[in-house]
Amino acid sequence: MALKCDVQYRKGDTWSKLTKVGVTGVRKPVVVRREGIGGALNGALNCSIDIFVDLPADQKGSHLSRNVEVLSDIVEESIREPVTGLEDMACGMCRKLLVHHEYARTASVAIEAEYFRESRTPLGRGTLEMYRLLAGGTAVRGGGVRKTIGAEVIGMTACPCAQQTVSEMTGADGTAVMSHNQRNVCTALLTMDEGIDVEADDIIDMIQGAFSSPTYELLKRDDEGQVVINAHANPKFVEDVVRSVLEAVVERYAGLPGDVEITVKSESEESIHKHDAFAERTASLGELREEYRRRPSQ
Amino acid sequence: MALKCDVQYRKGDTWSKLTKVGVTGVRKPVVVRREGIGGALNGALNCSIDIFVDLPADQKGSHLSRNVEVLSDIVEESIREPVTGLEDMACGMCRKLLVHHEYARTASVAIEAEYFRESRTPLGRGTLEMYRLLAGGTAVRGGGVRKTIGAEVIGMTACPCAQQTVSEMTGADGTAVMSHNQRNVCTALLTMDEGIDVEADDIIDMIQGAFSSPTYELLKRDDEGQVVINAHANPKFVEDVVRSVLEAVVERYAGLPGDVEITVKSESEESIHKHDAFAERTASLGELREEYRRRPSQ
Amino acid sequence: MALKCDVQYRKGDTWSKLTKVGVTGVRKPVVVRREGIGGALNGALNCSIDIFVDLPADQKGSHLSRNVEVLSDIVEESIREPVTGLEDMACGMCRKLLVHHEYARTASVAIEAEYFRESRTPLGRGTLEMYRLLAGGTAVRGGGVRKTIGAEVIGMTACPCAQQTVSEMTGADGTAVMSHNQRNVCTALLTMDEGIDVEADDIIDMIQGAFSSPTYELLKRDDEGQVVINAHANPKFVEDVVRSVLEAVVERYAGLPGDVEITVKSESEESIHKHDAFAERTASLGELREEYRRRPSQ
Amino acid sequence: MALKCDVQYRKGDTWSKLTKVGVTGVRKPVVVRREGIGGALNGALNCSIDIFVDLPADQKGSHLSRNVEVLSDIVEESIREPVTGLEDMACGMCRKLLVHHEYARTASVAIEAEYFRESRTPLGRGTLEMYRLLAGGTAVRGGGVRKTIGAEVIGMTACPCAQQTVSEMTGADGTAVMSHNQRNVCTALLTMDEGIDVEADDIIDMIQGAFSSPTYELLKRDDEGQVVINAHANPKFVEDVVRSVLEAVVERYAGLPGDVEITVKSESEESIHKHDAFAERTASLGELREEYRRRPSQ
Repeated sequence: MALKCDVQYRKGDTWSKLTKVGVTGVRKPVVVRREGIGGALNGALNCSIDIFVDLPADQKGSHLSRNVEVLSDIVEESIREPVTGLEDMACGMCRKLLVHHEYARTASVAIEAEYFRESRTPLGRGTLEMYRLLAGGTAVRGGGVRKTIGAEVIGMTACPCAQQTVSEMTGADGTAVMSHNQRNVCTALLTMDEGIDVEADDIIDMIQGAFSSPTYELLKRDDEGQVVINAHANPKFVEDVVRSVLEAVVERYAGLPGDVEITVKSESEESIHKHDAFAERTASLGELREEYRRRPSQ
Repeated sequence: MALKCDVQYRKGDTWSKLTKVGVTGVRKPVVVRREGIGGALNGALNCSIDIFVDLPADQKGSHLSRNVEVLSDIVEESIREPVTGLEDMACGMCRKLLVHHEYARTASVAIEAEYFRESRTPLGRGTLEMYRLLAGGTAVRGGGVRKTIGAEVIGMTACPCAQQTVSEMTGADGTAVMSHNQRNVCTALLTMDEGIDVEADDIIDMIQGAFSSPTYELLKRDDEGQVVINAHANPKFVEDVVRSVLEAVVERYAGLPGDVEITVKSESEESIHKHDAFAERTASLGELREEYRRRPSQ
Repeated sequence: MALKCDVQYRKGDTWSKLTKVGVTGVRKPVVVRREGIGGALNGALNCSIDIFVDLPADQKGSHLSRNVEVLSDIVEESIREPVTGLEDMACGMCRKLLVHHEYARTASVAIEAEYFRESRTPLGRGTLEMYRLLAGGTAVRGGGVRKTIGAEVIGMTACPCAQQTVSEMTGADGTAVMSHNQRNVCTALLTMDEGIDVEADDIIDMIQGAFSSPTYELLKRDDEGQVVINAHANPKFVEDVVRSVLEAVVERYAGLPGDVEITVKSESEESIHKHDAFAERTASLGELREEYRRRPSQ
Repeated sequence: MALKCDVQYRKGDTWSKLTKVGVTGVRKPVVVRREGIGGALNGALNCSIDIFVDLPADQKGSHLSRNVEVLSDIVEESIREPVTGLEDMACGMCRKLLVHHEYARTASVAIEAEYFRESRTPLGRGTLEMYRLLAGGTAVRGGGVRKTIGAEVIGMTACPCAQQTVSEMTGADGTAVMSHNQRNVCTALLTMDEGIDVEADDIIDMIQGAFSSPTYELLKRDDEGQVVINAHANPKFVEDVVRSVLEAVVERYAGLPGDVEITVKSESEESIHKHDAFAERTASLGELREEYRRRPSQ
């Protein structure tokens, strides 16, 4: 029996377009192979994937199973032919989505994955740290494909203001004075034309360099002391974390076009409060460059 | 001792503006009194509040404690003089934020609160149902204040496509054929000039009317059967839920200006899948009206 | 039509008892009035409630709607006649559950609610802080009813070990040396016969006194400095937080019977790691007293 | 400089034992190789790991970094010599923990990991489904080591009671009548002596067989219809899901000793309510066998 369930195609009783229709939270392991990243451990990344297309005003429904089908095909291919990056996979999916949803004008994909990478403590011991990769793509029918590359990194901030206050209250010397410090979660995303290549590993490095100190799974006594000393020698507001990432982005990506879009967020789980502190910047690389050019001479 | 910690005001070593700096997840009970809503139970709403201003390029930090101070003042006042709505409170806070952060050009506040309201089952029994109120405000220095009113409501959808497929596979009659059904979470937000009044209760009603069926805390046997029958007599995709809310908004708010911004989202926790289905529309009321005007004659 | 759906009573095809059958995450506002606690703000507590009975081997199903019915009756009554405490409400529900589930041998109820209470910063300014009340009851048919009272409180810990290490590494004086510090979530639960009265406010006080420092929603500069100074003058491991609560419990509740059961947990969201540190003790008050009696002379 | 931070060993000012002290939420990829499970995709499992030992009354602190060190050593070894199972790794860790924490009397480890496995839809198409593996170990100094193996699986339940009610209300035939259906999350855990081998894949199979129907990432139209038909032909309460797993366990593990401990939980995200339905059984295999032996003759 050929099932001809065509409910989704039914016409005549709808009038409003929909911006995004799709599936969220599809879990899949994706085999990635990229020069310079990962080892045995990063053979397959466990991904959580959102997949959307838009829907014209006169069509009742989107064929959601096609979204998962496009994904499954690509994931299956990745076992034989690993993808070169989650953002490349996202772009490839967007292109296929526009083929399979012949009524759609736009397609978008967003991917999150845990990612483990070796790191080194201040005193040089090796550790394995967890990061979250963020990747995506958007396609417009008849237009280009844009990709998004980013990461979420957990680090540590020590508060510059409390440090100065304590210094005034106790008369202690400023460079090693106690302050409140806490976990900070910082996210940076770059969106650009598909042809441009940016390494997620570089983004992780830029974020990690923006904290008062990176954090580590395993710290022996002397390393633990050193992390505390480093963090207090380098106190940072959430504002400072965002700005440090912005500066690293402007300086590192001098060759990228001005229409690269950048979002950087930093959230501190304040140890002295029950709520969090938050800072964010969204801008084009062109805007940031203009601000940077006008920065006060050092 | 007068503490002169002026770290935040320090100039000279920053160059990038920040879009949003503030605090997130501040928990406060707020006493709301509004004609027609709530009873004894809604005297105080437990709110989770995010508060932001922007930051100019040459200022090191934002004074985050002022955000909580503005909030605490308004909450304390609400005990003596209840606020008329969370969105009004958000707008009032935005205005005060621009006074207290003299360097800021924009301010924004977002509020979430659990809200209980009486409802009636299909067979007329009273129940008490939980909703989530969403409210907010944004202010631009020297410009106007916009407010946001909305709600998140949990309901039920039954799938029209699976119903038709089962009908074809079993030969059963279409109006009472089984299908998969599941929890659906639908959110609608309206953003408009401060002077306009929209009732959150109306938004809840519009969302509730858009599901295959509302859901209820307490259902005796016959009511449970009736909910199942109602849902299957009224099958809905996530797309349909969003469109039903859009239609209710266009028809109810004929008097509102075209620049009211609308976001409607519907997410179904698919019973047959481990992932969710999702649909969203963002548009101005003007755009929606234009689409509605061109709808096929019924 | 009298619906005689008796599926739950169907006999003959089941053989295994079930330990707990019921509903979880039912949201209800409950009006509590108790001498000495709350003001206008705590008129109604937003509760999340789990309700269970056991099920004999030969009965197919439990009547889950009766659980919500028992709850709804008590909540409705609470509007006219406020409950004296969430734990009293839990015990009352357990008794009613055994009446309405005539086949059940045991009943249990667990309740969580946000709770706001005034506090004072180190320098004496008033703040409003959020806590989580935890309450419950269990009943055995023909036996007694036991109640559980507790709280989850967020505070701050500064690490004693990192402080000593930094002291050795920098040569700085030990009482005001920097360390890593972070949010700590501590929970204490006491379970006892129904006739005994224990105040949740006292449990909150005991937990709050066990941290390196309490935390506050609103801290002006000098208070922020003082919190940092206090926390570092009072460094605590997760182990210390649990033990401080245990000591407060033993000393305060000298009059309570030895069969009161105590669970205390402390979890630190370590600022220097991406994972948390955790400590827990479960014991009877009798066991704790015996350990306390044998403590080293001070 | 040899740092001699011995804060943790400090004696004399503590009197209370602690039941568990350790770290929670440590993320690590672990390479597992086990006959019959996984393929390329399951080379490394992303694990979240909790690690605890107890602490005697007179010792101030536990050396938490040793927990992560024990873990890191085993994970690093797993790259060269894959572990044979997460539960084996947990047991090995427990043994090492008692060596490294010479003061501890007990050690315990709990591990969670996402796990992907191929499955087949009702009409035989291949899909890749996500499960959650649960594993653990506990060791008592001078006693034995016990291991825990289990899984969390997402499936679908259709309500037998609503189906019967609808049947009575509509007069429709009972075998294909509509009902409410929803996502169900079922967890089964078996704890046993270290020498016994149980396959997590078998536990997943038993759970999957206990739902009204398994669920699938990708369902074309006819498969979707078949899943709906299957689920309604096999309606299940949360109670039934737990009991089906218990029956499968008793029948499959006839050779295992009676002191194997079993916990089975089922939670339905009720489509007609905003809250969940829940059932649980905890018992020894011996108890279950005795109940099974006395079951009504079929």
